[in-house]
Amino acid sequence: MSNRRPSPPAGGKTPAPATSPWRASHERQRDRELKRDAVIRAAALEFNRKGYHNTSLDDIAARLEVTKPTVYYYVTSKEQLLFECFVAGVERIRSACREVRRLELPARERLNAVLRQYGEAVASEFGWCMVRAEQDDLSASMSRHVKSLKSEIDQSIRRLIREGVQDGSIHPCDPKMTAFALAGALNWIAHWYREDQSMSGAQIAEAFVAIFDAGLRPRAGEPTGAAPRRRARRRSHADTEFPPKSS
Amino acid sequence: MSNRRPSPPAGGKTPAPATSPWRASHERQRDRELKRDAVIRAAALEFNRKGYHNTSLDDIAARLEVTKPTVYYYVTSKEQLLFECFVAGVERIRSACREVRRLELPARERLNAVLRQYGEAVASEFGWCMVRAEQDDLSASMSRHVKSLKSEIDQSIRRLIREGVQDGSIHPCDPKMTAFALAGALNWIAHWYREDQSMSGAQIAEAFVAIFDAGLRPRAGEPTGAAPRRRARRRSHADTEFPPKSS
Repeated sequence: MSNRRPSPPAGGKTPAPATSPWRASHERQRDRELKRDAVIRAAALEFNRKGYHNTSLDDIAARLEVTKPTVYYYVTSKEQLLFECFVAGVERIRSACREVRRLELPARERLNAVLRQYGEAVASEFGWCMVRAEQDDLSASMSRHVKSLKSEIDQSIRRLIREGVQDGSIHPCDPKMTAFALAGALNWIAHWYREDQSMSGAQIAEAFVAIFDAGLRPRAGEPTGAAPRRRARRRSHADTEFPPKSS
Repeated sequence: MSNRRPSPPAGGKTPAPATSPWRASHERQRDRELKRDAVIRAAALEFNRKGYHNTSLDDIAARLEVTKPTVYYYVTSKEQLLFECFVAGVERIRSACREVRRLELPARERLNAVLRQYGEAVASEFGWCMVRAEQDDLSASMSRHVKSLKSEIDQSIRRLIREGVQDGSIHPCDPKMTAFALAGALNWIAHWYREDQSMSGAQIAEAFVAIFDAGLRPRAGEPTGAAPRRRARRRSHADTEFPPKSS
C-alpha cells in the first residue's frame, strides 16, 4: 500500500513526516474507502451467485480472503450490505440525473443519457440488489430510504419526459405510465442478464435506449406538445391524478 | 350447490336419476374444479398480502372458511399452490397467443392483443406469483415447467415482432431485445400495481399497449423490413446470434 505515496524529493533533506512509517490521514481514509467498496462489491457478487438468504458473511469474507471480523469492521450486518449494494447501483443513476441538468440538449437526449446509465447500473453486479431490495430483508429505516431514492429517480424520469413533451423532442404521452414502462423494461434486465452473456452491460443499455428512443421521438405530421400556450388536451387521467410532488 | 341443477320438467313423470340425492358426475367434476380454482385464487391473494414465506396453508384455509385438510384435498403443498398461481396467470397469455394465430390482422395488432392480455394477467391477483415464481421456492420439475412456459411466451412474442417487421406493421428492430423490453415493462407492473389504485388492470394494460404501439409502428419515410427479398441490413447482432429455436 505504501507505493501509493510519492517518493521524497531526491538529493535534499526530507522532512520527518515523509519518512514516517505511518501513512498520512488522507491515505488511510482513501484506503478504508477502497476496502469498504471491495466488501460491498464482493457481497453483490455473492448475493447474485447464491441469493441473499443463502449467502453468509463467511462467504463474503472467503471471497475477499479475509476474516469475518474484518468484514464487520466495514459494515455492521448483512442487511447493511444489501442496502449498500442498492445504494451503489442507484447512485450511478442519480449522478446521471444531476449531470444532465447542466446539458443544453433536448430533453429526449438528456433522458436517453439517464436511461443509458440506468441500464448499465441494472446490468452491473449491483443490479440484482437494486431491483430486489425494499423487501422484508431490510430494516424499516433502510426500506424507507430505498423507497425515497426510487421515488426520486422516478420523479426525475417523469420530469424529463414532461420537459421532452414541452420542448417537442418527445411525442405527447402519459409521463407516469411511460416512466413506469421505461423503468420496468430496464429493471427486468436484472432478471435475465448474466455477465457471461455475449453482450456487455453497455451494449444492452445501448440497445434498450435505441428501442425507447424509437418510441419517444415525435412523428412527422403528428401533433406535439411543444406549441406555446397550447391546451394540454392529451394530458392524461393518471398524470393529473398523481401530481408529481417534486415539481 | 344443488341449485346449479336444473329443475325437473313440471307436470310429467321424471326419471329416477333426476331426483337422485347424488349429483351427476359432470356436476361433481365441475364443482371440484370451481373449488380448486377458489383455493388457488385464495392462495394468490394471501401471497400478495403477506408474501409467500409468511403465508401458511392455515391462512389460505381461513380465507376460505374451510379446514386445512380441505385445502390439502385440492393441492398437495404450498409450493404447488405457488406453481398453480403462476400457471393460472400465464395461461391467459398462452391462450391469447393461440387465439391471435387465427386472426387475419397485421402482426403489430396481433402482438398488441397478446400484450394486452399479458398486462391484464400481470395486473391480476396472479401477477405477483407470475413474476416471482421460478425462484428457489419451487421443486426442480416445477421450476423447469415454469421456465419452459416463460420461454414459450417469449418465443411467441419474438415471432410476432419478426412477422410485424416482415409485413411492414412494425419498424425494423431487434426482436430479442424488443421482446425483453416489452415483457420487462409488463412484468414490472406486478411490482408497483395494487388493486386499490384508481386504474383497473385493463386500463393499465391499455395504457401500456398504447405506449408500446407508439414505439413499434413504422415511421413515414423510414425503411421497413417489408420489401420482398430485401437484404436484412438492419438485422441485429443479437438476433443472428441467438436464433429462435422454435422457428
